[in-house]
Amino acid sequence: MVLTSRDDLAVLLQEIQPVNRLMLEQAQARLDNLTKPRGSLGELEVLARRICAIQNTIRPDLGRKVILTFAADHGVAEEGVSSVPRDVTRQMVVNFLRGGAGVNVLARHVGAEVWVIDVGVAAEMNEKGLVSRKVKAGTANLAKGPAMEINEALQAIGVGMETAREAISNGARILGTGEMGIANTTPSAALFAALLGVGVEEITGRGTGIDDATLNHKIEVIKRGLEINKDHLQGPLDTLAALGGFEIAAICGMILECARSRVAVVVDGFISSAGALVALQLQQNVADYCFFSHMSAEQGHRIFFEKLGLSPILNLDMRLGEGTGAALAMGIIEAGVKIINEMATFAEAGVSV
Amino acid sequence: MVLTSRDDLAVLLQEIQPVNRLMLEQAQARLDNLTKPRGSLGELEVLARRICAIQNTIRPDLGRKVILTFAADHGVAEEGVSSVPRDVTRQMVVNFLRGGAGVNVLARHVGAEVWVIDVGVAAEMNEKGLVSRKVKAGTANLAKGPAMEINEALQAIGVGMETAREAISNGARILGTGEMGIANTTPSAALFAALLGVGVEEITGRGTGIDDATLNHKIEVIKRGLEINKDHLQGPLDTLAALGGFEIAAICGMILECARSRVAVVVDGFISSAGALVALQLQQNVADYCFFSHMSAEQGHRIFFEKLGLSPILNLDMRLGEGTGAALAMGIIEAGVKIINEMATFAEAGVSV
Repeated sequence: MVLTSRDDLAVLLQEIQPVNRLMLEQAQARLDNLTKPRGSLGELEVLARRICAIQNTIRPDLGRKVILTFAADHGVAEEGVSSVPRDVTRQMVVNFLRGGAGVNVLARHVGAEVWVIDVGVAAEMNEKGLVSRKVKAGTANLAKGPAMEINEALQAIGVGMETAREAISNGARILGTGEMGIANTTPSAALFAALLGVGVEEITGRGTGIDDATLNHKIEVIKRGLEINKDHLQGPLDTLAALGGFEIAAICGMILECARSRVAVVVDGFISSAGALVALQLQQNVADYCFFSHMSAEQGHRIFFEKLGLSPILNLDMRLGEGTGAALAMGIIEAGVKIINEMATFAEAGVSV
Repeated sequence: MVLTSRDDLAVLLQEIQPVNRLMLEQAQARLDNLTKPRGSLGELEVLARRICAIQNTIRPDLGRKVILTFAADHGVAEEGVSSVPRDVTRQMVVNFLRGGAGVNVLARHVGAEVWVIDVGVAAEMNEKGLVSRKVKAGTANLAKGPAMEINEALQAIGVGMETAREAISNGARILGTGEMGIANTTPSAALFAALLGVGVEEITGRGTGIDDATLNHKIEVIKRGLEINKDHLQGPLDTLAALGGFEIAAICGMILECARSRVAVVVDGFISSAGALVALQLQQNVADYCFFSHMSAEQGHRIFFEKLGLSPILNLDMRLGEGTGAALAMGIIEAGVKIINEMATFAEAGVSV
């Protein structure tokens, strides 16, 4: 989808409707009729009835499971906020395409596909299997001014929407977010600070594993970015453009499109949650379609959950990104869907209620 | 395995050795060489290296995955401690054999088998597919005296060992515990109270969902059981016999045999943890082989974890038992094993360290 103006986005946002809440009750009625004490499958029942509400049926079908891993580079990497060289973004994209990365292994484990999208890698890439939708070879340095122009941010959101749309038209009924972009915990922390109104020290963590000195420097860089961009932080779209990244914008767009198409979307970790937060602030109905996969070990993710009053499905101390948490959580969500579809009722099994 | 005396058990306990701890380091060295920041897969890495240590290799193989669901009835059910009729134990065994229960659905989801073992159901059962190893048609009422004679408890432990041994000789390299037995949160809570030295009010919960009056009654029944059996609560075996159940004893035996055979065992929920606690108190080396699948919503399970300084893999507010939590956790453990086996190293992928 090509988004060329704020108005294009506004039209799409209006098309995002809440789920049918009555279906939550109908799904629970079926769950309560299965051979188990009421509510005894806890979170699996919550997941199952939410999928039912999204699909408007008590016989849900997850179809193809697809993780969209968006890759992009960040101008702010030049500030030395990460311990990893910038070229690793490109190298890891190649690793994704060869199937050797964490997200590939975990996606295979749960029967999901990984689509890899170049939305802004700072290198020429034309590898087989790569979805090439580069907006630009990396964002500008957010510590010196806006990371993206508004039109660039809209274009990246459009890439996310378009790719999600393609997965959905090819039969996906649950999508997972994923990302790769050296330095991208920095724009994510900046977005959380600006959009949630929390302190930079609180929300900023060690990313791939930086030392104390680099962490302090990263905090200072983010503070500088918030100060220099302070006139651009009006509303979620402008804030995304000023502080975000192409992959974060694409994740935002992908989540919006899933919600618009009434398809479940599993949000990966810290960086994906930054994209989700923008989507939620653009249109609150998005919440009905989002599943938050896990609590990242990255400091600050806990604050995101607390501020939004949300709970993640898993808490496995992971902090790899790529879509790894989304993949694992898809397996749990699918377990819930199988419970409602495959368990015997009391009547079928001849079990006394 | 036929256990006819305490000495038979003592001999087996001596054969349980700790894992090779050096292998934990070798496994971590391989994990640190995979294309991800060090430690960034958190708990998945912990699970992977523990499996490596158990199997004494950095290329582990989970082989067949088998859940052993032991069913038995409880004399204490006559005290009205459960809201569910006792015949439901038998009915649910039939449901397991037909594949319609929660554990069947979740085991299929993770590619595990469910073996159903009658170790003490209070009904004649000869259904196809059932492993018939009945010690007796239900325990005696623990509120009136010992639930089992020592020899009965030994026999049930032997059933668990024998069944685990059979699964292992047929290629299982990871086993999950499971159980069915109406009223069995009562003996489990009694065992926790006696073996952990915690208060009955603290450890006793609502099981399938009893009301306040029944909960108070259940607490009173357990206190009566602890009082009347007070001369029998010397050491884990005698305490198990006095307060436990045939399925709990079988789970204890199954865990002992897994440890003896150096095979990973995934402990399900509240009731399975009671069996695991007896095994751990009989032989502390057992801890190296146990994976605690999830934190049950049953009040008291949290206390078990706190007292033992352990953390569960999942926290999904489940309280169904049967092996449902073990099944889901097997999927997570297998994810960790695939990470160490299938991810590319930095060198293979050409990624800068």
